[in-house]
Amino acid sequence: MIAKELLPHPLGPLTAAEITTATDLVRKAWPAGTLFQFKVVTLQEPPKSVLIPYLAAEKDGSPLPAIPRRVFLAYYLRNTHKFHEALVNLSTGALERNARLPEDKHANGDGEEIIAIEKALLADPGVIAALEKLKLPAGTVVVSDPWIYGSDGVRNGLFRDDVRAKQCFLYMRDPANPDEPDSCHYTFPLPISPVVDCASLKVVRIDILPTGLDASIKTIDELEPWQPAPPSEYIPEAQTGGLRTDLKPLHVAQPEGASFTVSAYSEMGRSMTWQKWAFKVGFNQREGMVLYDVHYDGRPLFYRLSLSDMAIPYADPRHPFHKKQAFDLGDVGAGLMANNLQLGCDCLGSIYYMDGVLADAQGRPQAMPNVICVHEQDAGIAWKHTNYRTDRAVVVRQRELVLQTILTVSNYEYILAWVFNLSGDIAYDVRATGIVSSQPLDRGLEKTPHPFGTVVHPGVLAGHHQHFFSLRLDPMIAGHGNTVVYKDAVALPRDPVLNPHGVGYTVKSTPLKTSCSLDIDTAATGRVVHITNPAVRHPINGAPAAYKVHLPPMQPILADRDSFHCKRAEFADHPVYVTRYAEDELYAGGTWTNQSRGGDGVRTWAARNDSLEAGDPVVWLQFGINHIPRAEDFPVMPCENLRVTLRPANMFERNPSMDVPPSTQAVNCSVSLNGVVDKVNGTNGTNGTHKANGTNGSSCCA
Amino acid sequence: MIAKELLPHPLGPLTAAEITTATDLVRKAWPAGTLFQFKVVTLQEPPKSVLIPYLAAEKDGSPLPAIPRRVFLAYYLRNTHKFHEALVNLSTGALERNARLPEDKHANGDGEEIIAIEKALLADPGVIAALEKLKLPAGTVVVSDPWIYGSDGVRNGLFRDDVRAKQCFLYMRDPANPDEPDSCHYTFPLPISPVVDCASLKVVRIDILPTGLDASIKTIDELEPWQPAPPSEYIPEAQTGGLRTDLKPLHVAQPEGASFTVSAYSEMGRSMTWQKWAFKVGFNQREGMVLYDVHYDGRPLFYRLSLSDMAIPYADPRHPFHKKQAFDLGDVGAGLMANNLQLGCDCLGSIYYMDGVLADAQGRPQAMPNVICVHEQDAGIAWKHTNYRTDRAVVVRQRELVLQTILTVSNYEYILAWVFNLSGDIAYDVRATGIVSSQPLDRGLEKTPHPFGTVVHPGVLAGHHQHFFSLRLDPMIAGHGNTVVYKDAVALPRDPVLNPHGVGYTVKSTPLKTSCSLDIDTAATGRVVHITNPAVRHPINGAPAAYKVHLPPMQPILADRDSFHCKRAEFADHPVYVTRYAEDELYAGGTWTNQSRGGDGVRTWAARNDSLEAGDPVVWLQFGINHIPRAEDFPVMPCENLRVTLRPANMFERNPSMDVPPSTQAVNCSVSLNGVVDKVNGTNGTNGTHKANGTNGSSCCA
Repeated sequence: MIAKELLPHPLGPLTAAEITTATDLVRKAWPAGTLFQFKVVTLQEPPKSVLIPYLAAEKDGSPLPAIPRRVFLAYYLRNTHKFHEALVNLSTGALERNARLPEDKHANGDGEEIIAIEKALLADPGVIAALEKLKLPAGTVVVSDPWIYGSDGVRNGLFRDDVRAKQCFLYMRDPANPDEPDSCHYTFPLPISPVVDCASLKVVRIDILPTGLDASIKTIDELEPWQPAPPSEYIPEAQTGGLRTDLKPLHVAQPEGASFTVSAYSEMGRSMTWQKWAFKVGFNQREGMVLYDVHYDGRPLFYRLSLSDMAIPYADPRHPFHKKQAFDLGDVGAGLMANNLQLGCDCLGSIYYMDGVLADAQGRPQAMPNVICVHEQDAGIAWKHTNYRTDRAVVVRQRELVLQTILTVSNYEYILAWVFNLSGDIAYDVRATGIVSSQPLDRGLEKTPHPFGTVVHPGVLAGHHQHFFSLRLDPMIAGHGNTVVYKDAVALPRDPVLNPHGVGYTVKSTPLKTSCSLDIDTAATGRVVHITNPAVRHPINGAPAAYKVHLPPMQPILADRDSFHCKRAEFADHPVYVTRYAEDELYAGGTWTNQSRGGDGVRTWAARNDSLEAGDPVVWLQFGINHIPRAEDFPVMPCENLRVTLRPANMFERNPSMDVPPSTQAVNCSVSLNGVVDKVNGTNGTNGTHKANGTNGSSCCA
Repeated sequence: MIAKELLPHPLGPLTAAEITTATDLVRKAWPAGTLFQFKVVTLQEPPKSVLIPYLAAEKDGSPLPAIPRRVFLAYYLRNTHKFHEALVNLSTGALERNARLPEDKHANGDGEEIIAIEKALLADPGVIAALEKLKLPAGTVVVSDPWIYGSDGVRNGLFRDDVRAKQCFLYMRDPANPDEPDSCHYTFPLPISPVVDCASLKVVRIDILPTGLDASIKTIDELEPWQPAPPSEYIPEAQTGGLRTDLKPLHVAQPEGASFTVSAYSEMGRSMTWQKWAFKVGFNQREGMVLYDVHYDGRPLFYRLSLSDMAIPYADPRHPFHKKQAFDLGDVGAGLMANNLQLGCDCLGSIYYMDGVLADAQGRPQAMPNVICVHEQDAGIAWKHTNYRTDRAVVVRQRELVLQTILTVSNYEYILAWVFNLSGDIAYDVRATGIVSSQPLDRGLEKTPHPFGTVVHPGVLAGHHQHFFSLRLDPMIAGHGNTVVYKDAVALPRDPVLNPHGVGYTVKSTPLKTSCSLDIDTAATGRVVHITNPAVRHPINGAPAAYKVHLPPMQPILADRDSFHCKRAEFADHPVYVTRYAEDELYAGGTWTNQSRGGDGVRTWAARNDSLEAGDPVVWLQFGINHIPRAEDFPVMPCENLRVTLRPANMFERNPSMDVPPSTQAVNCSVSLNGVVDKVNGTNGTNGTHKANGTNGSSCCA
């Protein structure tokens, strides 16, 4: 039973009932019998000016202001390109906005559409005729992953690139095992790529992929018969060498339960507390997991934290790969692709699961169970010191609270997590896994170095690509009114009085006055970005309260400035952007990324040169991988891990984890393996007898 | 009982008996009654040309070549500056070399010496007289951390900087609690810094530290009375706010035991196997933990892996801080400083401990119990893919084998670990913790920004400093005869045929022909260093077998090229050096770092421009932190974590962790907290009933 008074929290994700109400209100605006393809039905969060007083009242127990609850919707009139945005006020029942968008704005894909497109193209006579040229073995099962079409600005007689379409890549299951639905079809990419109009579901063009080392492309008539190749399956029962048998179980147990609490701030929203941290967790279609109102020990830190965008441009400049750049959040949605996480599979230990509810293409609520898993994990030592005079060691272990969500974007997976620790750090972890996007390569060319990819299997090229992630921080470090400062470590010039030996260096702080981008050249400057509150000073050293940002190094987008890849990925050219807060500016690549042309997104907003003096900055952090595939990335790639860390800097009086109880054997219950795993005849060390660990008067456990 | 035949393995760390034999052989070379201060008694590893055939014979079971076992020693004639190196052949009982070194070569410190210096200086009348100027409270306990003297090339009348000495920093315990031996004296730095001659133990100079914002320094007579300040203790019983009580225990259990095995390849050396990995572990005074002969699935990867050096130059250019640069390995020794690790404190789970034995200053064996701990840990998801058509997920968890050692260098701690995983990666983890080196600041200046440090406590400045670590890789990727190649990702120019849309990029590979340094400007080039074996090609794509290197970004040393800091830290100016293997070139900063002047170390060796065409490269990887302290780094700093990853790249036919059994609840025994931690009245989600996790037909557990 959810108490009724929980419902109207302004940050509560939409409920199933609200989704139904909102889509009904849109339907009523159209003639009976109109068919809809709903693309987005999501909470329209209140503007900051309205929400800040609400959250303050919530904290101090004063009466809560009434905030109208609004829903943002986007939809097509089904089977047309007529794309609309709408705004519904649930508090009044009014349809406050309902407008058709220009022809070059296109919605994200949805699961229903992707299945329908695959079905349609595989029944297309032209596609069937092209496939026949390949003379595939009898019984072969062909499958298709419809990709977003991308943009190249080319409008020829056949097809204008600003019409919503999918560039579909074809594969087949292992022809020796066509009845296995989980056969890894990415091992068998085919050279035929139909383009399908998303409204009519008609094939509007059939592209043949370049399969050599240069830009030459065969015609359909020149296609040659497929040559047999072995499979490379990832399902465990197909591992021909068998599975390892010597990896022993490892359990994580919390015999006294977990250290965190969960409560509902709305039907779907959850508040969490853990080790002085307190925050709210939301979930929506576009961004997936969102954190709100993050505090540590009662002190405000972040108003809103979200993954804002992703872009994955590919290196291959040959048609049609030159258009291949995925914006997985805008083109599909991190919420929509969230996995149903399973106990014992996706997390280890004691796990709390949070559900979501989204809308399907019919505008009906779609339950999304277990989209976020929450657990604690040990993270090694938090801090240690041994006094060499007394040999007394004090050791404190680090603990992390992990909120994880996992996306499947056709072939690929992203494991995304917010991580809190005992020392005041917040980290954002990305693990990239899944199956690299594969393309066919002419047999016999495998051992010739390829300019745009790595051969990972006979006849299979995995193209080079860059991954860009954009994290959006809306900060309230020690309160609202923050200033972003970058700090460079700079060598002092020689000086006969101050620096006669040439060893001195200092830190140069530069506060940002206007919205801008920043680069980070660690080797040259050791630059670190701080989000500061000049109004709140450290009680001892007087420095402004701050959180600093540690970003992994990133190679900005390699596509040139005039390319559509670069124009569209408005965030992929700099590791940091800082803008002034503006309502509805949540997505670094703009609202509608599918076949976008640029002009909407963080680069555009930063170019306004908004003053930051009034202190409402939004910080956009970009990071990523230039993925030059390895053979070891196939058939499923081991995770590539990235971590962004937000770390207090003169925010707290001293190490905030000084009060964590020391690590002791009485609590940790570790086990000594000496005399167990070793084959040293029961002995170890210099004297033939090894003292029992844990009973040897260890000072840190005293 | 150690079987006698284990003793003579050429990579076995010295045994207690061997230490005694070796020092006895040195003693016999001198008149009876000569007093010695032994500084180094360590295994002289055989040259590669001798050891490679031995290791090969060991593997294929053929007769083992006889290899003479040698010991390298360094010692002073006690109470003199007469410093000697010696080489003992244990196999013949011969003292093969025994030579006095030039006057400007100085040995590492040792524990006995540090205690003796502290005792001597605190009894020095001049120091006592200076301390009296501070009018410390009655009963105050003054302590001293003797620091290496450093180098500035200054030879004035009082003292030549090439005489072995210590620059000693003075502190006191909390005067309100002088009987607490673990009171954090770094909270009370004093402005008096005696310089002590290491041979005579006499105070040769008393420096007064600069305590303002500029280079001005008081005389002893100008010293002002100490002003009261509060303590900042780290011991748990002194946390005045109490300790947290809500962090619940977290246990790691391996009910079927650990997955690794340990055997003795010598009395002190241990061979380990885990998940297709096999390697030997040694331990010595200088480098601490060393790994030898690392294989995966029977394939050779690394001949020798070690932390080669560290340098920590400080930013403060004022006398005497301008000389402050620690080389913790060369100046003291990672083995000598290794903590005695305690069960339930320094690792969690099922732990195997390895002991060491070193020599003390008397040349006697000194047991070093529990210097390395070995355990497995869960590391999240290794790889995952969900087929969106069938919703079947396959999830494999990552597991790591961790070999950890922890150093205490007076105020500071380093947690160092080699980490192996299931996907063929080897990582080297550094966690920097402990207490920042503190210096006194005039009271009242705390809130004025300081050019060279951060105020972390009233009257306490923590100086900016850089940490440089140098990892030495002696590779044998797929066998000996390796080539180092760097790979840059470069944009293609526009081209009407190949790159008409400006999106293309490719990878440019450059093999190194001669020894050199390399820089990594990720933003500009995305550079990645590969260690390759051109003679061993990937069976599918023909690429050379390789491991690639992922380094965290580093700001090279800020001290200028002509400074002693830069001259001495021969490795701190570039993230990568590659040299040709040469016997005895193990330490990036040279053999004797204490008061060194440069001219010995990896920069010097690389400058030989040795040809690498014959294929025996040694790769030196530098990484570190520019530590601008935060208030949160006091009194003990939370770990700053760094990870270097060595990752296979076209070394294995496919993902080497494809054969790891999928993650299942039957093995992992996780626990659902839904309905336990949440206050949602036993419900969760959209429909008021939450299905029991783990029993909902999870496909990944099928």
